[in-house]
Amino acid sequence: MEEDVLYHLDLGTKTHNLPAMFGDVKFVCVGGSPNRMRAFAQFMHKELGLAGDGEDLADICAGTDRYAMYRAGPVLSISHGMGIPSISIMLHELIKLLHHAKCRDVTIIRIGTSGGLGVEAGSVVITDMAVDSSFKPRFEQVVLDDVVVRSTELDRDLAEELLTCSKEIPDLPTLIGHTMCTYDFYEGQGRLDGALCSFSSEKKLDYLKRAYNAGVRNIEMESTAFAALCRLCGLRAAVVCVVLLDRLEGDQIRAPREVLREFQHRPQRLIAAFIRKRLGLRPPAGNTLCPTE
Amino acid sequence: MEEDVLYHLDLGTKTHNLPAMFGDVKFVCVGGSPNRMRAFAQFMHKELGLAGDGEDLADICAGTDRYAMYRAGPVLSISHGMGIPSISIMLHELIKLLHHAKCRDVTIIRIGTSGGLGVEAGSVVITDMAVDSSFKPRFEQVVLDDVVVRSTELDRDLAEELLTCSKEIPDLPTLIGHTMCTYDFYEGQGRLDGALCSFSSEKKLDYLKRAYNAGVRNIEMESTAFAALCRLCGLRAAVVCVVLLDRLEGDQIRAPREVLREFQHRPQRLIAAFIRKRLGLRPPAGNTLCPTE
Repeated sequence: MEEDVLYHLDLGTKTHNLPAMFGDVKFVCVGGSPNRMRAFAQFMHKELGLAGDGEDLADICAGTDRYAMYRAGPVLSISHGMGIPSISIMLHELIKLLHHAKCRDVTIIRIGTSGGLGVEAGSVVITDMAVDSSFKPRFEQVVLDDVVVRSTELDRDLAEELLTCSKEIPDLPTLIGHTMCTYDFYEGQGRLDGALCSFSSEKKLDYLKRAYNAGVRNIEMESTAFAALCRLCGLRAAVVCVVLLDRLEGDQIRAPREVLREFQHRPQRLIAAFIRKRLGLRPPAGNTLCPTE
Repeated sequence: MEEDVLYHLDLGTKTHNLPAMFGDVKFVCVGGSPNRMRAFAQFMHKELGLAGDGEDLADICAGTDRYAMYRAGPVLSISHGMGIPSISIMLHELIKLLHHAKCRDVTIIRIGTSGGLGVEAGSVVITDMAVDSSFKPRFEQVVLDDVVVRSTELDRDLAEELLTCSKEIPDLPTLIGHTMCTYDFYEGQGRLDGALCSFSSEKKLDYLKRAYNAGVRNIEMESTAFAALCRLCGLRAAVVCVVLLDRLEGDQIRAPREVLREFQHRPQRLIAAFIRKRLGLRPPAGNTLCPTE
């Protein structure tokens, strides 16, 4: 192709010097909410001890509101919206961006929120395997009119490295488990409180318990597509999600916003510690949010 | 339920007086981009001749960045992000909101962007039937581990009413056709320019031509779920999308941003004319964007 327009990122090979802008990126962190991913970039800016206070980081995708993208040193922080289709569009364009920019040895991590299964709210789950709603480690992708089945295996060493990292951080309960990925937040996750509900409380609990027995520890809406696409494109990938509630206890997220905000910061603290360690950096002085390792 | 927390809208039955806030809403317009839906609310504010310039409309969902919601008189304008999972979450919570607010006789319209099939860029397609990637008018929804098949039929009278309305507006090429809804923008829509592509240009064109022959005139990523959920909940619904390119001619959206912006305004002009007509209002004086009927 003479020109590649990355439409939903508002970037392109003719309009932007992608190697100059992104060639030295080593870590890509993605998450649903644009505000959260801006906050993560600001946090990383401080954690990496970069010059300035990092409060005025520019949105690299400012020309579009489909996604937001920020940069802190070698770390790119990008929002992906909610659900498999939304993250897929972003990943296709991100992977082309990394290719055009000639990036090497990139690690990509999804930091998100999820519902837990038999896991306390506030726990962080590192995914060893993303499974679909039948608890199978596969992503079924419609290509033209065929269904192509793709593996959703994630990088085991990376998951273990993250778990080791978590043990050095106080007050960060972390475990490794399977993550179930669904196409819907309400009926698709067995919630009784959507606009429609065609099943009983018993059927719901039976389903969630079967998921638990199959090794599922949390439920979200992007991991299978993320794992499959990253794997096919040779990116080392991890999924690290905090649990906002235990679905065996209820459906509604009722914790106060401040509590949820602190929960959502937990995967960020873990990933900051991991990136610092990889880069051989010590935590910044006086940081109370991310305790010393 | 004693309390219903509409988590992704940051609204709730205990924290907000939903009947007072929304009881008189008669039209709900939804679209992918938050900026576009704010612009639509501002445009409707002027079109309805409401007091003030409408430039400072507040985001009703300001406490979250998952969705944005604005109000202009009886019109609610809400963003839904990209893809079926993202619009489904919003619709579940919106439908519960309309129920809690005791709204009556609500018409809901998705105004979006799409790729065309044998249709010129800038054309507006009113959907008579949303079809899946096999060209069938159905939405397959995973509920617990079952697949439930739901009808995606839309309101025929409403589609005809919108088409009639379009004929009274100059420079607004509009047609009625089937809309294909996919889970992916790249491989799922037969694009050759994603990060991955496992099929030939011939296979792609064969697929798109079969879609055309089945009556598909445009492709987007939300209509089947939108049609199915609205139908099941008794909402009169329509899908009105502008075509940004003809997919029989190419994959990349290369038109200049100004041209795309004018295209994206076309469904808004049509819906404004429709709502004014329903309310028995004349177009505002001096409006050049929305010519007189």
